[in-house]
Order: sequence, then structure tokens, then C-alpha cells
Amino acid sequence: MIITLAPEAELQRVRAELTRLGLWVDSVERAPTGPVHVLVGRGSTAVCVAEVQRIAGVQSVSTPETKHPLVDGHGPELRLGDLLVSTRRPLLIAGPCAVESESQIERIAAKLARVGVLALRGGAFKPRTSPYEFQGAGKQALSWLRAAADAHGMKVVTEVMSEADTALVAEHADVLQVGSRNMQNFALLKAVGASAKPVLLKRSMSATIDEWLHAAEYLLSHGASGVAFCERGIRGFDGSTRNLLDLGAVALLAEVHRLPVLVDPSHASGRRDLILPLSRAALAAGAAGLMIEAHDEPEAALSDGAQALTPQALAPLAREVNERRRRDSGARSALAQEGIA
Amino acid sequence: MIITLAPEAELQRVRAELTRLGLWVDSVERAPTGPVHVLVGRGSTAVCVAEVQRIAGVQSVSTPETKHPLVDGHGPELRLGDLLVSTRRPLLIAGPCAVESESQIERIAAKLARVGVLALRGGAFKPRTSPYEFQGAGKQALSWLRAAADAHGMKVVTEVMSEADTALVAEHADVLQVGSRNMQNFALLKAVGASAKPVLLKRSMSATIDEWLHAAEYLLSHGASGVAFCERGIRGFDGSTRNLLDLGAVALLAEVHRLPVLVDPSHASGRRDLILPLSRAALAAGAAGLMIEAHDEPEAALSDGAQALTPQALAPLAREVNERRRRDSGARSALAQEGIA
Amino acid sequence: MIITLAPEAELQRVRAELTRLGLWVDSVERAPTGPVHVLVGRGSTAVCVAEVQRIAGVQSVSTPETKHPLVDGHGPELRLGDLLVSTRRPLLIAGPCAVESESQIERIAAKLARVGVLALRGGAFKPRTSPYEFQGAGKQALSWLRAAADAHGMKVVTEVMSEADTALVAEHADVLQVGSRNMQNFALLKAVGASAKPVLLKRSMSATIDEWLHAAEYLLSHGASGVAFCERGIRGFDGSTRNLLDLGAVALLAEVHRLPVLVDPSHASGRRDLILPLSRAALAAGAAGLMIEAHDEPEAALSDGAQALTPQALAPLAREVNERRRRDSGARSALAQEGIA
Amino acid sequence: MIITLAPEAELQRVRAELTRLGLWVDSVERAPTGPVHVLVGRGSTAVCVAEVQRIAGVQSVSTPETKHPLVDGHGPELRLGDLLVSTRRPLLIAGPCAVESESQIERIAAKLARVGVLALRGGAFKPRTSPYEFQGAGKQALSWLRAAADAHGMKVVTEVMSEADTALVAEHADVLQVGSRNMQNFALLKAVGASAKPVLLKRSMSATIDEWLHAAEYLLSHGASGVAFCERGIRGFDGSTRNLLDLGAVALLAEVHRLPVLVDPSHASGRRDLILPLSRAALAAGAAGLMIEAHDEPEAALSDGAQALTPQALAPLAREVNERRRRDSGARSALAQEGIA
Repeated sequence: MIITLAPEAELQRVRAELTRLGLWVDSVERAPTGPVHVLVGRGSTAVCVAEVQRIAGVQSVSTPETKHPLVDGHGPELRLGDLLVSTRRPLLIAGPCAVESESQIERIAAKLARVGVLALRGGAFKPRTSPYEFQGAGKQALSWLRAAADAHGMKVVTEVMSEADTALVAEHADVLQVGSRNMQNFALLKAVGASAKPVLLKRSMSATIDEWLHAAEYLLSHGASGVAFCERGIRGFDGSTRNLLDLGAVALLAEVHRLPVLVDPSHASGRRDLILPLSRAALAAGAAGLMIEAHDEPEAALSDGAQALTPQALAPLAREVNERRRRDSGARSALAQEGIA
Repeated sequence: MIITLAPEAELQRVRAELTRLGLWVDSVERAPTGPVHVLVGRGSTAVCVAEVQRIAGVQSVSTPETKHPLVDGHGPELRLGDLLVSTRRPLLIAGPCAVESESQIERIAAKLARVGVLALRGGAFKPRTSPYEFQGAGKQALSWLRAAADAHGMKVVTEVMSEADTALVAEHADVLQVGSRNMQNFALLKAVGASAKPVLLKRSMSATIDEWLHAAEYLLSHGASGVAFCERGIRGFDGSTRNLLDLGAVALLAEVHRLPVLVDPSHASGRRDLILPLSRAALAAGAAGLMIEAHDEPEAALSDGAQALTPQALAPLAREVNERRRRDSGARSALAQEGIA
Repeated sequence: MIITLAPEAELQRVRAELTRLGLWVDSVERAPTGPVHVLVGRGSTAVCVAEVQRIAGVQSVSTPETKHPLVDGHGPELRLGDLLVSTRRPLLIAGPCAVESESQIERIAAKLARVGVLALRGGAFKPRTSPYEFQGAGKQALSWLRAAADAHGMKVVTEVMSEADTALVAEHADVLQVGSRNMQNFALLKAVGASAKPVLLKRSMSATIDEWLHAAEYLLSHGASGVAFCERGIRGFDGSTRNLLDLGAVALLAEVHRLPVLVDPSHASGRRDLILPLSRAALAAGAAGLMIEAHDEPEAALSDGAQALTPQALAPLAREVNERRRRDSGARSALAQEGIA
Repeated sequence: MIITLAPEAELQRVRAELTRLGLWVDSVERAPTGPVHVLVGRGSTAVCVAEVQRIAGVQSVSTPETKHPLVDGHGPELRLGDLLVSTRRPLLIAGPCAVESESQIERIAAKLARVGVLALRGGAFKPRTSPYEFQGAGKQALSWLRAAADAHGMKVVTEVMSEADTALVAEHADVLQVGSRNMQNFALLKAVGASAKPVLLKRSMSATIDEWLHAAEYLLSHGASGVAFCERGIRGFDGSTRNLLDLGAVALLAEVHRLPVLVDPSHASGRRDLILPLSRAALAAGAAGLMIEAHDEPEAALSDGAQALTPQALAPLAREVNERRRRDSGARSALAQEGIA
């Protein structure tokens, strides 16, 4: 935002008024002749331009055009069929890192449904750092996942890693997940958008907010029916947690951009002992949901078992999340439709 | 942690058991002759060595000696005279960035006390990026701050920036704050420790957890009566918030190291519109308190007014924090001694 | 590396010997019973295990198995037909950000060839942050690029962004470039590897060295004939340069891993005034080449013109690079085969 | 820089001209009524305002006032008595991490002088992460260091860590070093500045360029006779090097800000095997010198021996540096005065 002062303006007074509104001054710029401009810092509280305009001494207030109009118009909710997802109605998504067999996913789905989890995650195609690690059970895993979810009235969230698989994944999933390593895989974003499904867009390891919003704009401009963002930890410099959970970004998306943003505390911390406190912190920061790795036999998991919680350990969190949903719906009847109560 | 396997051990089974405990394997290392070693990753769940020892096939479990024994023995509480500070009894510290005049700090203290704030902050000496910015009102401000706090039964938290001022600050403050830019100013840490007071140790912009713990070890080994850590945001790459709040570190200190850690959401975000959600997130993550910039006339503040909240805006948060304290104390009488009820 | 000490070892002496070799001790770990282990830090000088073994008091030296055997066996050279690329024979790749028209690329190729540039770059498919920006001229641009290069005896380096386009790009290019946003797009890495061509693998914004090596392992294990790495700046926190050029990583790959690594100073700095000094710094650090954006009419470029150099401005650098190649070949005749002299 | 367009201006043409000059457009901002502003990105090539003014359609060009006038007026050289230090006359500073005894420093100084090192470094006061590590030999070490340097006609560079020691260090040293952990220890900066000596100001782990320049402004505004900056690696996320050497910042300071900036490749990499290539890269990027840890018996060093080079290993680099100095002086006679030839 560039604020141009009138010739008679008193700079000190204008600065005081900007401070009152919560705006930081990045710089005051002058031309040899011509007016004084005040450049407002990006990290300022969001305020209405009209409020700035009203300050005595302000001649004009210039703002940039948005570069992601569809994201700006998206709104704070994601609709998944009969389920509404928002800060006030957070969604708990849980399931194993990878779908390994028909019986494994069915067993875990049953246990998760029992504690109140409404959406099932599980990877059919796994992004693995090494080519020699388990790459997922592939296409068959999609059917197992769908069947397990259907058996328990759950939604399916699963990752798509290849343009070539997009149609197939879209057939089986309620939400297509784009992984953090593919956040700027533009060919994939276009294909996923074209499937016209809701998308869970993970933030890449070092994406700025702006890059993240632009990635969502790719999805929406190619046809996605909705986008939920997912913060999963960015690259940090301290190995005591796997990644660095950026809840400031979550609060920013939820409170300022008014967009639905979920948090994946499993990948963010990598530590079982931090997942519950960080889940609660995420909800307090405005998260519209959580995506958590859960396995009933972590020791048998083919990937990431060390960070998986058991369905049992998840139960209290599931209760809290559903309590919020219930409170928001204001009536048990609404929740009944969603299949819990 | 290095786990040495017995000759007959089955590596796959041991790995599964480690996974069950929430431990990541960083590498498996072998010598041409000699046993197989499993190196456990630092970012693993904290577990008891005896549990690892019990796994079939494990010959021995080696762990490093601690390098910060005093910090390890500190415990999760900070005692400030009659006030106890811990995750279960969080403390809200509030006040202006800088103490500017006797009347300013008295007026703000009165308003903050009225909404239930128990500790008053305010800078007499200000660390400013530029030598030409307001450097604080200096020594006289310490007396004003003390008097204002005393008038309303509040504790005083204030920063000390110079070895030369340490004794004077220690005379006036209940808690000496070491700022993030001085976290590894070892001369200052020694002087502050020697004052034998409780210390609030802010994390430096890019300190690892280990460096932070070592800085606290300097304080304790030189005589500090206690240390509370304070996360205030680390250096991030996205200007939409001033800094990057690392609540994973807060959860780690609170849950794993069992140390008192506060959060300064004002500096972490720099944005008035994110302070309340991030405050609640911090408490959910395990914070033992919050330090928040508050000013009754932000537009008149000589520094950082754009991120200051009014006492009024803080009131709901103060209520929540005090409700937690009350719940923990289990009896109104305890709280009455602290001067709220 | 885990060094296990003999019962009679003197720890201080062993530490001194490790220091002499340039090894850092991360921790000394002990089990209640059993030997003392010394864990050597990853950021140590690379030394031969046998040297460590010879230290008095060392019982055994354990090392992890490599996880990227094909990368380890790759060697410091990349062969592009008749051109050899290595630290001693660096390659200058230059060309416009995007191939915009047949005449544009032909004109620029002619000018670059005249100043001694041996390889032509230019994007047919462009990764753009926003879906509303120019996405490249697509398939036709590949033919234009090939024709322009052939007319002047140059090699072609161009980016492939989609699995679906891989075969077509492989038909037209001598080197397939994988962009930084796709470094861990594993579906693409597999497709590109399968084309059996040499690949230029850009480092992603916040990839660790290990992740980068693993991405190359994907390429090689799926058939790539060779890999050259390309450092293009990682995510930094200071906006005065676009990205943060990590020449330490370049030196590490060149000197320790003995792999061919190029540098893209255009994207790393984003500033025309820093490209030449950083290019020379890259060569001094061990780079096997440079990839630089060049345009004869930067003001007419559809993308990234602000960071493009003119062919003229590149001339001195081209001379220096070719002088190195010539020196290494030891005879003009060798260079004559490559089409310069 | 804010460029305000005239009513008749064609935005596309102005953008093209800005691109031609190497300027990036951050945003185009508009008020409902009033002119269009173009905000130029900070990471652009530095250009003369008059050139921008000349573009057709530009009404006015506004720029911020500098906040560090003394740094801006400093110039690219540092004078150390009879020695001039600049990009064209780089200085090699070498010596042990810590001064441990009179004989140790005398022996090392002799060996370094013999290979052509003109300035001796060595710590009397050592900043150590842990309070239980060797903290330096203290005041006596200053005399040993001075005597050793004098015996061989060398300059002395040493760190000051405490306001209380500043006068004493200033008495013994030719250049006062402010360590990276104290870059924003403002009390120390004021004291060091007041000593009226030349200062070597290390960059803190995650300082922006702007913060670094401001720290130098503290020094100069309090009386320092000159400042040389020293890049020693910033906090990185990959443990294969100790820190992340930012040669982009070096090039920026040298080429754009025209300030003397040295590089410490020892701390930047922590690895003996990368010090020489990174030293040469630093010089190519525009460094005005190098500060390197050297020890004749690394295994006996009380600190940081693993990254120390022997005087012998430094000899080729010393030759190269002195060759540059010689070339610049244009005459052996000038160098003779400095005591080498």
C-alpha cells in the first residue's frame, strides 16, 4: 500500500494515525519535486482502505491489484458433499501413511470411525526420498481405501503424484491431496484442477504465502471445486523436530485471508509426543482441521510408523474436534446427517 | 542414542520395536568386523533407555552425557516471589514496548491491573536496530516502572542490555529479561546470572534448541535463581509476519524438556490481528505464559505501537489465563494471595 | 561414523587424533556397561576410514551403507556427445528465459555462438508462479530451439515440466533440465530418467544435499545417462537478492562428492550487477559450468528480462570459461573438435 | 523506489524500459483517482535515479532517505596503519582460534609470517556455546598476541566480548573484532566505536544486510575509525557444512554498496577440505580479505582444531593474496613498506 500525502500534510501525525490502525511504515519516499509517499509494510494488520483514506493529510491510497482473484473469492469453507469444513467446523482426517493391504486399511478405518474420525487418509502412491523405498501399493490401494471408507461412512483423502493417475484418483477420492513436493508442479496442478474435485494443497517446504496462494489459483482456475490449504511444517534448522510448524501462517490464512487451512502435525513434528499439543495449538490458531497419521500397529507400518498415533491415542482429540463441529451446528440433527451421533 | 545389536539380533525386528516406541533410525552403521550399530535420530519421541534396552537383540544402549546439567535439573516452574509460573499456571506479562514517562507507565499499569494482568513489562533500555532511534528513557525509567507496578501489586519484567546496568536493573526488576540479540552475549549472561534473580531468556533469531539451553546453563551456572525461556519468533522468509513463531520449539521445551517457556506473540507476528489467536495457540502448545505489548494510546508510542494491543483488547485473554491459574490452584484463597480475586 | 574405543583407549588422545584429521566429535556416548562410542559429525572433512582405524585405542569404525550407490559411482564428468563437462572443463550455457519466436532464438543463438557459448538454453515450457503469466510457446518452441542451436553447432538444454512432454523434449534436447520446483516430482524424475539422456537437475529451494543426491539416484536408477547438478540459489531471508546462492554446497559436491555441479547465478541473485562476480566465484568454488540468462533485447523479454545479460556482456566470461577448457584439453586440436577454435 | 507515472504514460512501455535497466516491478498500485505507481523491487540492479527519470511517461521517482549515512560515506577501503585493505588489496588474516600460551602464539606467528601472512588473529576471550568450555586465556593473552605480532611485523586482529574489556583490547589490537553473536549487542558496539579503532564486524547468524549495515552505523556514529564487514556463514539447514556461506551478500556489499567485506571460510564451512576453494570463491566474489584459522598442531588446539589449516597449507593462498596486493600497488616498493618483499 502506497499512501500519498497532501502538500499540507504533517508526516508525524499521519504516522501516528497509521500506527493507531496497526500499520507499519516501511519507508517514506520522496522525489525532488512531487509529493511524499508512505510505503506501508506487508506485515501490517489488514485494514480497510477507506479508514486510511479518512486520515487527515492523506491525498490518495494506492493498492496493487490482486493476482489471485479466485482464491480471494473462495471463502473460509470447504464443502465435501454433506460435510462442511471450516475453522468453526474442523475436520479430523486420519489414517496410515500408506495403504498396505485391504485388511490393514479396513481394520484401521473401523477403529478410527469408532473414535469419531470422519475422514480417512492413506497413500496409494507415496512420495519417497529414495527410489529404493516402498512407493505405495498403487492403483489397487485406491479401491481398498474407498471400500474401507465407505464401510464406515468416511470421506477419502489421498495424494495424487502423477498427471497420469489423476483421473483414477479422482474416481476414488473425495479430496485430492497435492503433496508438498508437488506444490509447484504446475502440470499436476492443472490436471488436478481439471478433475473438478476439492483439493487439499500442502505447502511446500519453503513456499511463501504468496506462492501458496498462487498454487491454489492454478487449481481453481483449472476447475477445482474448492481448495483447503495444509500446513505441514517448513524447512527448519533444528533437527529436534522433523520440520518447523508455522502456525503464524495458519493464523494468517484463517484470520486475514479467511481461507480454510488444515494442519498436519505428524509431518510437522515427526514426534509422537508433540502431536497432541501441536494439534490443539493448530485449532487455537484457526485451523479448519487436522490431518494425522494413525496406525493400529505402528511397528508394522511400511513407512513413517515412528510418528503414527494409535486410534486410541487420537480419541480425545477426535472428541474435541467433533464437539466443536457440534457446537457450531447448533443442533444434533445436523451432525446426525453427517453420520456421527 | 547408539544402539548396539547382539550378534544374533534380527535387524528388522529391532527396527520394528524402535518404531513402536516412536524412534526414528537415522542410520545403521557397520564395521568390517564388530557389531551393528543403530543410530537413533534426534527428532524422535523421548523414551526411557530401559525400554530400549528391553528389546530382544539389543546388546547395549549408549547415550551422551548431558552438557547442561543445571538446566536439566531446573524443572517446569519459575518462582517469582509469591507467584508460581508454569504451563498449568501461565503468567500474562503485558506493558508498553518502552517506558516513556512516569505518567505513561502508571496509567497503563493501572489499566492492565484492572483487567487482571499480574506482571508489567516495559523497556528502560531499548535495543534498536538504528543508532538514531529512541534508545529508552534509561535509569529513571526503572524507578517509574517499579513504582507503577508496586502501586498495583504487579511484578516487573524488564530488559537488561549492558553488563554495566545489571546491578541497577536487578534492584528494580523481579525478572531480568535477556533480549534475543543478546542470547549469546556471554559477558552479559554471566553478569545477569550473578545477580541471582530469575531470568527471562529470549531465543535468538536463529538459535537452535541446544544453543538456547546452553545459554540458560550460563545463567544458572553463574547464579541465576531460575530461568524461563521465551520464544519470540525466529527469522523467517516471508514478510507477511515479522518473524516466524516456532510453537514446535515451545511444545518441545514444555513437553519433553519440562521447562517453563513463555511466548511473545507481539514480536513473533508483529501484527495486531494475529496476537490473540497465536496467544491461544501458544497456551495450547504448553506455554507457561505470554508476554504481550500493550499500550493505551498506540498512536503515541515511541516504538512498536503498530503491534501493541490496548488493555481492553487484552481483557479476554487475561481472563482465560487467570482462569487456568485459578483452576490449578484449586482454591480461590491461593489466588487471593496473588492479588487478583 | 561411529568410532568404538578399545577398553584401554585414552579418550583425550583419540579426540586429538580425530582433530588432527579434521573430524569433529558430535558426541561421546556410553552405555552403563560396554564400550565408549565417539560419534563423528557429518560436517567433518572427508577422510579415509583406514586412517581412523589406525589411531591407537580405536577398536572399530562403523559407517553407514550408502543410499545412493549410482550417484556415488557417477564420477565428476558429464558427457554431452563430443563435449566433456567437468570442473576442469566448465561449460557455459546461455540463452533467453523463454523461447518466444523462431527469429528471436535464432538471433540470440547467433550472437551467443559468436562470443563462444557452446550450449543454448531456452524455455519451451515455463514454470510460472501465476497461472496468468506466459507459460511458454510450447512444443513448437522446441523445434525452433533445436534449429537455432544446430545452425551454430551448439548443444540444447531445456526444461521438461510434464511427464507427458518428456519424450518430445528428449527428442529435441541434448540435456533435459529438471527445474527446482520439480526436484522431488518423482513421477517426472522417473519419466525423465527413462529417456536415457543426460539431465541437469536443479536443486529445490530448500533441499538438503542428501535429498538432492537422492533425486539424482531416481534419475540414474531409471536410466538417465548422466546427471549434472545445478545450484540456483536457495530460499533466503533477505530480499536484496532473489535467492541465496549456496557455493558451500557447490564446493562440497565438487570437492568431496566429486560430482559435476553447475551454477545458475541469474536465478540465484536475480540482479544483473552480481552475475559476473558470482559466476567467477562459482568457478573458483569448483563449478563445472554456468547457466546464465542472456537476451539481446532484455526490454522485450516476456519473462525475467531484468536479470538477463546481453551476449556482449557475457563475452569476457565466455572467454575465461573456454580458456579453462582449452588449458585442460592441452591442445587446440581437442577444442577444434568441439567447434570453437 | 516508487515511480509515479504521468497520466498519458503507457504502462507496458515503462515496464519494458525498467526491465532494460535491470529493475524488477514488485507491484503496480493504483488509487481510485490519482496516478499509477510502480513499486520497484529491492532485489533489483542498482541504477542511477536520473536514468529512471528519463523514461518517457515517468512523472516522478521517489526514493527513501538513507538510514545509515556514515556507512554510505565509508568507501571501499579500510586503513590499518600502513596497510590498505580493499577488494583490490585483499588481506589474509590467520592464526589460531585461541591464544593458548606465549610460546604457542609466537611459534605460529613466526610460521605464518614466513608464508606471507600480514595479520595475526587469535582469541584472548572466546565466545563458547557452553559455560564449561575453555573461555580463553584472557588479558595475558593480549600481550602475548601483541608481542608475537610485533616480532614479525604483523597486525593484530582480536575479538572483544565485553564492554569492560574494550579499552584493554583496544590498547593491544590493530583491529577490534565484534563476533557474530554480538553483532547487535548495542552496548558493546557503542563501547567499541568509542575506542576510535578500525573494527571487523562479523555478521550475525541470521542478520539481514540492512541490520548489518545498521550495526556498522552504530560503530561509526560512536567513533570507529573504519569498519570492515566479515561474512562467516549464516544459519543453514544442512549439517554437511557448519554454516551457509553467503557469497551473494559479499558480492552485494563489495559491488553495490562498495564496502570492504572479508570472509571467514573456516567458520562458514567448518571443514578443512572446503576452506581453500571457498577462499578463492570469496576473493572472486569481491572479498577484501580472508580470515582463516591456522594452527601448526591442530590436534593440540583447545578449540576448533578440526577446522584449522596448517601454515604450510595456507602458503599458496597467501601467495595469491599477496600477488593481488602487489599487482594493485603497481610497484614492489609499496609492498616493501608493508614488510613482505
